[in-house]
Amino acid sequence: MSHTSTPPAPAAAAVAAPSPDAYGIGARFSLHPMTDSFIDVILGALDAADSTGLTISTDDVSTHVRGREDRILAYLTEAIAHAGRSGVHTVAHVLLSRGCPGEVACEIADGGAYAPQVPQILRNVPATGIHASAHWALYPLDDEGTDHMAGIYAAIDHAKQLGVFTGSEHYVTRLDGDLADVLGAVVAGWLLVGTDVRHVTTHVTVSLNSPSGQAGAR
Amino acid sequence: MSHTSTPPAPAAAAVAAPSPDAYGIGARFSLHPMTDSFIDVILGALDAADSTGLTISTDDVSTHVRGREDRILAYLTEAIAHAGRSGVHTVAHVLLSRGCPGEVACEIADGGAYAPQVPQILRNVPATGIHASAHWALYPLDDEGTDHMAGIYAAIDHAKQLGVFTGSEHYVTRLDGDLADVLGAVVAGWLLVGTDVRHVTTHVTVSLNSPSGQAGAR
Repeated sequence: MSHTSTPPAPAAAAVAAPSPDAYGIGARFSLHPMTDSFIDVILGALDAADSTGLTISTDDVSTHVRGREDRILAYLTEAIAHAGRSGVHTVAHVLLSRGCPGEVACEIADGGAYAPQVPQILRNVPATGIHASAHWALYPLDDEGTDHMAGIYAAIDHAKQLGVFTGSEHYVTRLDGDLADVLGAVVAGWLLVGTDVRHVTTHVTVSLNSPSGQAGAR
Repeated sequence: MSHTSTPPAPAAAAVAAPSPDAYGIGARFSLHPMTDSFIDVILGALDAADSTGLTISTDDVSTHVRGREDRILAYLTEAIAHAGRSGVHTVAHVLLSRGCPGEVACEIADGGAYAPQVPQILRNVPATGIHASAHWALYPLDDEGTDHMAGIYAAIDHAKQLGVFTGSEHYVTRLDGDLADVLGAVVAGWLLVGTDVRHVTTHVTVSLNSPSGQAGAR
């Protein structure tokens, strides 16, 4: 009797969702509109996005967003899309982290890995109509005993299914497509690895309205 | 007889330096001057920095720099400082990677960890006179069997010795100081972890001439 063709039960289904504060689920992001009126574009973008359910704090380098994954994805998509609609060449840098409630040098708390199911997270984010080009890196941390490459390959396959995977570069994967799909692929990859690895971070640099991109043969 | 106060011999001293291509030593960075004339500032910065010994390629999202660590540090410092001297609020995002020659999903090649000695890397980068504020993350990857936290603590202690450590935030360490010291701390941390862990990446968001920072009490 062989069960090798039976997919394993999803690990996440058996674990109650921890609170974002307890598990350390959040984002840091910064928005760089390349215009003399950058302050208006940044404040307008932060103001336009729905922050329901999120705790947001901004300093002079970046903005920290703490909350549930679906709310983080919706907020980032709305804020960055709003900046993109100005028509200004704008770059956003997003860091997502889970599994480490505190600082960069935190010791990982005991306990299993948890991540919500990807379709539940992506279902409520409509297309923005804004084209984005991105460089994406995904990091399983302190992953002793897990096959972390399996999660990374699943994340890249998922980006291909979403139609936004456009190539592999040194240290990063390139994504192109509607901003909502690009950010959706990044969040989904973070969760796919996070199903088995407790502490996972991901970084993405997202470029909108680039004069280089518009001039190219894309 | 106790030797607990004797520092261990540096592991790097026994290993021949691999080529940057073979080991995968490089940077990806992007420069975001928040001005209508951003193209002039970016091209001026890339042109002003000495690229001797480096292989540089630019696309519409970021610039890839391959070469020796001391040359990468000098190049990034010169390019970002040049943009900062425009007086424009400018943000740079830098990703450094070592130990993974190929793509984000590379399998780590066999072989030991290597990193050059930190003082040799930092000695040739003079102060820029440009103040930088930064958020820094440091990632040991595929670190099974190593005490990766020891490297991270050594990296943070080194940033404190350089006088640029200014706090711990969610997911990042905050650095403030002369741009050369901030980037020096980031490169040094990457190398201190890289002495024991083969694949190490680090990300830093560096802000220059921020109107928020100037308005603050710092």
